[in-house]
Amino acid sequence: MLYFQPDGKHAPVKVGQTLLDAAQVLGVEIDAVCGGVGTCAECRVIVKEGRELLRRPTEYEVNSLVPEDLDFGYRLACEAVIKGDGLITVEVPEESRGTKHRLQSEGLDTHVKLEPAVNAFQIVVEPPVLDSPGSMYERVEQALKNVGVRAEDVDQGVLAGMGPTLRRLGWRASAVLYNDRRLIALTESGKPVLGMAFDIGTTKLAGYLMNVTSGELLSKVSRVNPQVVYGEDVMTRLAYILNEKEGLNRLVRSVRGAINEMIEEACSAASVPRESVREIVLVGNTLMHHIVLGIEPSSLGASPYSPVVNSSYAVEGEKIGLSGGSGLIAYTLPNVAGFVGADCVGDVLATGLDKPEGTRLLIDIGTNTEMVLCSESAMSCASSPSGPTFEGAHVRHGMRALSGAIERISIDQSLNVRYSTVDGTPARGICGSGVVDAVSEMVKRGVLERSGRMKGDGTLKGIVRSQHGLEYLVAGASDNAIKKDITVTQGDVREVQKAKAAIATGIKVLLDQAGFSGRDLDHVFVAGAFGSYMDIPSAISIGMLPDIPLNKMTQVGNAAGTGARMCLLSRRARQTAEDTAKRMRYVELATRADFQQTFLKSLELAPY
Amino acid sequence: MLYFQPDGKHAPVKVGQTLLDAAQVLGVEIDAVCGGVGTCAECRVIVKEGRELLRRPTEYEVNSLVPEDLDFGYRLACEAVIKGDGLITVEVPEESRGTKHRLQSEGLDTHVKLEPAVNAFQIVVEPPVLDSPGSMYERVEQALKNVGVRAEDVDQGVLAGMGPTLRRLGWRASAVLYNDRRLIALTESGKPVLGMAFDIGTTKLAGYLMNVTSGELLSKVSRVNPQVVYGEDVMTRLAYILNEKEGLNRLVRSVRGAINEMIEEACSAASVPRESVREIVLVGNTLMHHIVLGIEPSSLGASPYSPVVNSSYAVEGEKIGLSGGSGLIAYTLPNVAGFVGADCVGDVLATGLDKPEGTRLLIDIGTNTEMVLCSESAMSCASSPSGPTFEGAHVRHGMRALSGAIERISIDQSLNVRYSTVDGTPARGICGSGVVDAVSEMVKRGVLERSGRMKGDGTLKGIVRSQHGLEYLVAGASDNAIKKDITVTQGDVREVQKAKAAIATGIKVLLDQAGFSGRDLDHVFVAGAFGSYMDIPSAISIGMLPDIPLNKMTQVGNAAGTGARMCLLSRRARQTAEDTAKRMRYVELATRADFQQTFLKSLELAPY
Repeated sequence: MLYFQPDGKHAPVKVGQTLLDAAQVLGVEIDAVCGGVGTCAECRVIVKEGRELLRRPTEYEVNSLVPEDLDFGYRLACEAVIKGDGLITVEVPEESRGTKHRLQSEGLDTHVKLEPAVNAFQIVVEPPVLDSPGSMYERVEQALKNVGVRAEDVDQGVLAGMGPTLRRLGWRASAVLYNDRRLIALTESGKPVLGMAFDIGTTKLAGYLMNVTSGELLSKVSRVNPQVVYGEDVMTRLAYILNEKEGLNRLVRSVRGAINEMIEEACSAASVPRESVREIVLVGNTLMHHIVLGIEPSSLGASPYSPVVNSSYAVEGEKIGLSGGSGLIAYTLPNVAGFVGADCVGDVLATGLDKPEGTRLLIDIGTNTEMVLCSESAMSCASSPSGPTFEGAHVRHGMRALSGAIERISIDQSLNVRYSTVDGTPARGICGSGVVDAVSEMVKRGVLERSGRMKGDGTLKGIVRSQHGLEYLVAGASDNAIKKDITVTQGDVREVQKAKAAIATGIKVLLDQAGFSGRDLDHVFVAGAFGSYMDIPSAISIGMLPDIPLNKMTQVGNAAGTGARMCLLSRRARQTAEDTAKRMRYVELATRADFQQTFLKSLELAPY
Repeated sequence: MLYFQPDGKHAPVKVGQTLLDAAQVLGVEIDAVCGGVGTCAECRVIVKEGRELLRRPTEYEVNSLVPEDLDFGYRLACEAVIKGDGLITVEVPEESRGTKHRLQSEGLDTHVKLEPAVNAFQIVVEPPVLDSPGSMYERVEQALKNVGVRAEDVDQGVLAGMGPTLRRLGWRASAVLYNDRRLIALTESGKPVLGMAFDIGTTKLAGYLMNVTSGELLSKVSRVNPQVVYGEDVMTRLAYILNEKEGLNRLVRSVRGAINEMIEEACSAASVPRESVREIVLVGNTLMHHIVLGIEPSSLGASPYSPVVNSSYAVEGEKIGLSGGSGLIAYTLPNVAGFVGADCVGDVLATGLDKPEGTRLLIDIGTNTEMVLCSESAMSCASSPSGPTFEGAHVRHGMRALSGAIERISIDQSLNVRYSTVDGTPARGICGSGVVDAVSEMVKRGVLERSGRMKGDGTLKGIVRSQHGLEYLVAGASDNAIKKDITVTQGDVREVQKAKAAIATGIKVLLDQAGFSGRDLDHVFVAGAFGSYMDIPSAISIGMLPDIPLNKMTQVGNAAGTGARMCLLSRRARQTAEDTAKRMRYVELATRADFQQTFLKSLELAPY
């Protein structure tokens, strides 16, 4: 038997399986940024019993883990292969678990004219009598006509229960119509009409429960996308889909299950009945969009990275395994391209980028970073695989923005480090905003050259040389929760350089091909959870964001989710989304002649 | 354990259950015309083992079964209640089983312009390349535009598999559209587009598999409606729905399961893939229509007998548990009223009654008989609960038109009886057409008075007096398969009188309220399986049908099924059906002042 602690989940031992595979099948969350292909060394677990039932550590494990950890029983879950049957107990240490994100779900406050797709009409239906023939549905149609609505279609579920419902309600009902055309529910008069907007991120899911009639936000829920156990970025999940027969089904079930739970959770939090949820509006990157809709997405995994569908799409929730009230509709915003999805269209809506108000740039930073440049005349967009560095991956002591993550760092002239952690608890690692601060401060204090090279001549306080090369000490072992030095390594700096260069390159190419420079920008919107927490001056100083005045920069949080909320409340916003997606010209960075050169130049830790 | 022979079906004994309930749960077919309420005595079974585990025969059983049968182990399944656990073996004798109907599925030959709702278009899709963005679906839309079609919507299932499908087919495909608007399938070029028309009768189901592109009929299938185990007519099934918590679900599952099996069977018979079936078109009486669509129908069971929906309705097959090819649509013709359903609209289409061609009458005889009277100026219809007498119920030696059923009877002047049986096998009972012949001949030869009274003075050959009263011997015990005399009883004659009077009353009222008499009729169409087998002169002579020249009478078989086939092939026919259903004025017989008087007069066994 194979036991995972502290979850307590277990299964019979399967010889030949890796611990990561076993964990994924069981739904045990283990960080595996690389999707289990053996490059991120994030999936550290401790084998408490049954070490002898595993094959010996691989070379990669020996290189990735320090000897004392190996002795202690540490293994990389993706490398450790089971070779014999018996009791194996595996502990997933906290730093390897993907739990309780500090998720940012606020977004912008925007105003939309209330014009929801789902509306309720109070009707009085004429009961049938002998000398007035005609069916119940005809009577309902007539009652709707009496209030100025012409139903053209009716959901089978409504017909199925129409007789008992009308009798129970005494021939007075609330008729819920989709787009004023399709009757999707008959219910008691006065029941609220609810909807939920969802941002389906690669890493996090955010849901907003709203009364679509009043526009009121009733509750917000968020959680880690349970798909992270199958790989943390789009490409590793695509690889999982391509390589595992049941891969797509697992990802589909996993995210749909989470959405259904979130609907339940949001309704419960707001003390409203789930049966009143009539529509959900979804945004997400193109892969997430395809997976929720059950669309085989492998064309997104290879050039020319073609989506299966871009246009907005409405489907009965039932058909894609989503459950709310009867007649539930699931509506997705349009995509633009394989790597510019409906979430980016939501960003544009939320920031009003579609309106002709000067030259503006939107950057939504995530494991994939999307940028949209909008001038009076044109709208172009690009996508850059900035990677999960700012989520804490590829960084030796990196972690997500959980309790105990170092999120702010400053270094004074005497090279004393000061930091603060999420929730103020003892430090356990460094999250993205902390890493950006660290690099920025290290350059400022001369610990790092602009090229990214750490000064290793032994003269500077805090720099040590270990088996991992040079490291800069942020929080000493005596002072933190993990009882090991928390450092920024030379390797970490290189990862930050690559990630920020990917973002900067996209921005520069977009500006360049539109004939602009950073100085021409009237405004920059920075979206996404990390983008909203990071220190903008730090990001400018290391050359991630263009060097423009701070008053021209706005951190807009989960703008994609805000865009989804706007569409939940407004059919006009949907039309704008559709039009905008068609207007957005996608620029494929990788095929540009100047891409490589711009990228190399962008590695420098200096403002641009 | 409770075993049923010869099916071999079995289940644990449930004390308190009747044998009929147990049989229905197991799907063992036992005739129960009355729906198990204990009035028809059709559900005779033989308890072979475990008699002591049943409660003693009820008074009704003792009255219904002869003593030697009771001694032999005969019980009525609806009355026999299990009182103890142990082995109970029950044989369902052939006469109590509802199997292998001789079903009439030919219908009229009519001609329709081919204009099916489902069409395939051969398309060549431009594969995606780097400098031409846009999704696969947009490419398919463009390819459809190239052949003159504008897709407005796409089935989620098509999107789900679009990528792999297009790659597999080399970007050349057959795009299947519903109403030229909704893309419901992408498949190999040249695959046929198939559809099935169904007549969902109370007693029988008939299915026609067609190539909707060519109009070719590929195969025909039929079977007994498996719902008969829950009662043989509309009212007993409604009672079952009202009285049994799971009643509606059972009826729904039962008929949908049969439809799915028939699709499979028809495709297998024609050696075509079920995956190519894209639409099914259904007709049936209003209750059957509601049940197939899963609509709670209890409003049909009480005045004012209001249907839930009359208009034609299209729904995804998947939504109502029907399975054919992906994207399958189920389309139902419109109903007119609670007792004039889509099948009657099919009758009208098939007989061209909607066309202005003189004064014509259509009669579709079944357990419920519908009539439509059409003059140049108006179209009226009525429905009469003629009952299952002509299906062999309520008749002492009645049976359905199975092998061995006496279907034709003549009596010569010397009162010698001659008869023929279905399939020419030894007689087992008398079916509807035989009963009509018998009554007609008995009147002709003076065995019966016009009032229906059998001459019981002992002077006439063949008339005997038994515990059941007077009986007329048709086939002696030595001469038949059941080794008991097969007779027509005085009670049987009364049943025939009631049934034929119900039909005649409907006809007379319709004619009367339109200001016509039988002589004004230019033509009469007789539809339905029984109506097509019965002897028209016999039916006229006993006053079931109006007395008009035989050359003005046409037996049209399953016209309802033909109407469904027309709609499968033609969108115009659907429009006609919709318009016709709205034009047909429903006349409620029971509320007419002259109804009772007309009915009593119609009991007479004489032409009108």
